[in-house]
Amino acid sequence: MARLIERVGYTIAILGLCATAWSVQAADDPLPSWNEGAAKSAIIDFVDAVTTEGGDEYVAPADRIATFDNDGTLWVEQPYYTQLAFALDRIRALAPEHPEWREQQPFKAVLENDLAALEASGMKGLMQLVMASHAGMTTEEFAIIAEDWIASSEHPKFARPYTELVYQPMLELLAYLRDNGFKTFIVSGGGVEFMRPWTEQVYGIPPEQVVGSTIVTEFALQDGVPVLLRRPEMDFLDDKEGKPVAINKFIGRRPILAVGNSDGDLQMLQWATETDGRRLGVLVHHDDAEREYAYGRDSSIGRLDQALDLAPDAGWIVVSMKDDWRTVFPEATK
Amino acid sequence: MARLIERVGYTIAILGLCATAWSVQAADDPLPSWNEGAAKSAIIDFVDAVTTEGGDEYVAPADRIATFDNDGTLWVEQPYYTQLAFALDRIRALAPEHPEWREQQPFKAVLENDLAALEASGMKGLMQLVMASHAGMTTEEFAIIAEDWIASSEHPKFARPYTELVYQPMLELLAYLRDNGFKTFIVSGGGVEFMRPWTEQVYGIPPEQVVGSTIVTEFALQDGVPVLLRRPEMDFLDDKEGKPVAINKFIGRRPILAVGNSDGDLQMLQWATETDGRRLGVLVHHDDAEREYAYGRDSSIGRLDQALDLAPDAGWIVVSMKDDWRTVFPEATK
Repeated sequence: MARLIERVGYTIAILGLCATAWSVQAADDPLPSWNEGAAKSAIIDFVDAVTTEGGDEYVAPADRIATFDNDGTLWVEQPYYTQLAFALDRIRALAPEHPEWREQQPFKAVLENDLAALEASGMKGLMQLVMASHAGMTTEEFAIIAEDWIASSEHPKFARPYTELVYQPMLELLAYLRDNGFKTFIVSGGGVEFMRPWTEQVYGIPPEQVVGSTIVTEFALQDGVPVLLRRPEMDFLDDKEGKPVAINKFIGRRPILAVGNSDGDLQMLQWATETDGRRLGVLVHHDDAEREYAYGRDSSIGRLDQALDLAPDAGWIVVSMKDDWRTVFPEATK
Repeated sequence: MARLIERVGYTIAILGLCATAWSVQAADDPLPSWNEGAAKSAIIDFVDAVTTEGGDEYVAPADRIATFDNDGTLWVEQPYYTQLAFALDRIRALAPEHPEWREQQPFKAVLENDLAALEASGMKGLMQLVMASHAGMTTEEFAIIAEDWIASSEHPKFARPYTELVYQPMLELLAYLRDNGFKTFIVSGGGVEFMRPWTEQVYGIPPEQVVGSTIVTEFALQDGVPVLLRRPEMDFLDDKEGKPVAINKFIGRRPILAVGNSDGDLQMLQWATETDGRRLGVLVHHDDAEREYAYGRDSSIGRLDQALDLAPDAGWIVVSMKDDWRTVFPEATK
């Protein structure tokens, strides 16, 4: 009798689990923050097509690879990349140890908040700032620095932590894809070690599914303890042509879905979509000055120009933030 | 009534699934090809410790990362690396298109089977052979070439396909780890694109969990079609100090278990084990001339010397192929 009760209890427990899974799958709307329209329909049609067993366009779960850009696609990238905000804060924090920076560009510009001089220092200046702020420590030390900064910093316009300035519709899309057997990856121009400390918690994407730019690291024994030292030297820039190269190198499968927002994502979308089988390319268009930002063809950050021109012929969906998204950000947690 | 029957059927189906899963988990011996002894006990103790919820040494599933070397750890690497056999065969296959190779070293040596001249060409000659055989095509063309070769080639001593010359005890260990929530990765000095076409089928390790050496690839549009071209230039050598660097870059988490067989795996084992928390390092010692090969301290391929000296103090398990493995290879499939 006890055994029967135990068995019945077990069965009920299993049915309960199934009911939970079922309610997630069968929820009326997997993308509640997306307004009804062409973009939302195209995404749902695509997912239905590649997951319908026996259908012409069925894709086995193992090949359901989806790649997402990060800056401007999953989170805010204006008025400047979050990682640049981190680099500038870090330079300010390190300044007491570097009195020479007071007279040395581009550091002087940062310390004096001289945006004109900062811009005049160009790409070379930018790389100096990145190296001074991102190298010279072990990988584990850097992870703590990045994690502490992201936990304690706020966006200048929205006055919220950067990790809350992620797009609610994209969080839903990531979850919807995973519920349908997709493996979701980030493929970003941002530094991989700047993203990994928080992507799992914020996006549900574990470190090993984050692909990004890297600086050179070097294995060493410090007092017999193995460490990886971050050297002030670029290893790989994961942008434009670099994105398909990195996808091939890190993931080793071609995505069937790629999501981006700028010309930096153009080659990733080409690589994902311009081949046989059902594919989907998605571009987020920032046209919402009221709720976020409006920028695109002329922006120095997140320029969307050539990819926008190619989208109609390529069949890529252009998502209007203004029209297609009911909500932009998740509700504040505090 | 029909609905009730359907529901009962559904419940039975679910119980059936559970029973199947249960029988796998509760099998008497998860490592039947391992003889009882210190090595087997150490592995099982380790897995028990890190998977026991509430235990002092519990590790959350997400952090159960295990990295495996390939050549000599998961499959045979003697009398020479399988990838070298591939390169030599490929040079022979391409020779008709390259009449100049008949007079040009190291190609002449390959075509004339002149092992002395081949060895005399050294690392420089080897790299020439690798580049001539591995570059100059798209990534997708190379995948087909590698896949065709591996499906049609046999090992000179065992006269079996290379993919059957994988170690049965390691196949069991990989499955046992995955059954216990581990994510299994390959971290090999071999070319990543030489391994990925077959690792999922043979080891159950998908392409995105294979880390290896890479050559430079370049994104291009060929008649409007995006391709990745393999250039005759090394990108990254995933060996020795390169292994922890690659683990950090590709996986972004530190393994808690690392398995290798040579000094090329030394730094990977140091990186995985010489830190806080319960960790395990494993070295396979090839001491079985009868069933496989016996080599180690003086071998040019798979040298195991320094790592063997460090093993006792580091607490790494040295697995004797002769004593610890009941079976070496899986049964032939044909």
